[in-house]
Amino acid sequence: MTKEELMQKAIDLSIENVENGGGPFGAVIARNGEIIATGVNRVTASNDPTAHAEVSAIRAASAKLGTFDLSGCEIYTSCEPCPMCLGAIYWAHLDKIYFANNKKDAKNIGFDDSFIYDEIALPIEKRHTATEILMREKAIKAFENWANKIDKKKY
Amino acid sequence: MTKEELMQKAIDLSIENVENGGGPFGAVIARNGEIIATGVNRVTASNDPTAHAEVSAIRAASAKLGTFDLSGCEIYTSCEPCPMCLGAIYWAHLDKIYFANNKKDAKNIGFDDSFIYDEIALPIEKRHTATEILMREKAIKAFENWANKIDKKKY
Repeated sequence: MTKEELMQKAIDLSIENVENGGGPFGAVIARNGEIIATGVNRVTASNDPTAHAEVSAIRAASAKLGTFDLSGCEIYTSCEPCPMCLGAIYWAHLDKIYFANNKKDAKNIGFDDSFIYDEIALPIEKRHTATEILMREKAIKAFENWANKIDKKKY
Repeated sequence: MTKEELMQKAIDLSIENVENGGGPFGAVIARNGEIIATGVNRVTASNDPTAHAEVSAIRAASAKLGTFDLSGCEIYTSCEPCPMCLGAIYWAHLDKIYFANNKKDAKNIGFDDSFIYDEIALPIEKRHTATEILMREKAIKAFENWANKIDKKKY
């Protein structure tokens, strides 16, 4: 499939999802022009605030391929990824991102990804959500144990 | 439970998870001092790049409470949230974040959350992962349908 055909699939999913009671977002993960998995926004339908189209597609593709590393795959998403989804795309090591609608379009219909982008850019003490740091001296033990572990599975 | 007890639980989970073959991260979601749900990093164990401790705890708490809106809850995480997890925390509307280890500590043991923070701050054309925009004129239809839908469930 061409990149336009793959994006059309993501767009079709986003339109169908509105009809099915979900948010207007769809995503496709492909490798060498073949669809590996798809995802739609099911936040309200499945009571899962992380169930954005991209996260759903990444989880489905990883399960299908049996790996947490999607190198060699690309994502086609009907809207610019929010910070959560962009982070997921980096952790999944996807090769390339294609998107159609942008975060301003999303804001215009009530999805304020821009707010989260702005928050992440702020120093912790200036963010809207209060953050408190505590007990680092105890938590560092897990990191020391990890560093000293011989048979760990890195990622 | 006090905030120190709740953080100790997150830390205990992070230490146990290393012993169980997972990454050194644990998280607890609490409301009024009571634990609602917990999560650990199962990226490699479950082949899911999104299965960080915080995302796992948010998904578990949402499932338990039957809602995508965790307002009134707080998250205790053994390490500063990465951008994916911070995004998830915002989408879940958690009231407050407590963390112990920070992103520099994480980088020191090979988890480069800092890289993703740096990438998100860059304009799209300067990011490491190539991004291409296409077919917005077709994708906008889903947004128009959403805007015009009367019985939609907002979030």
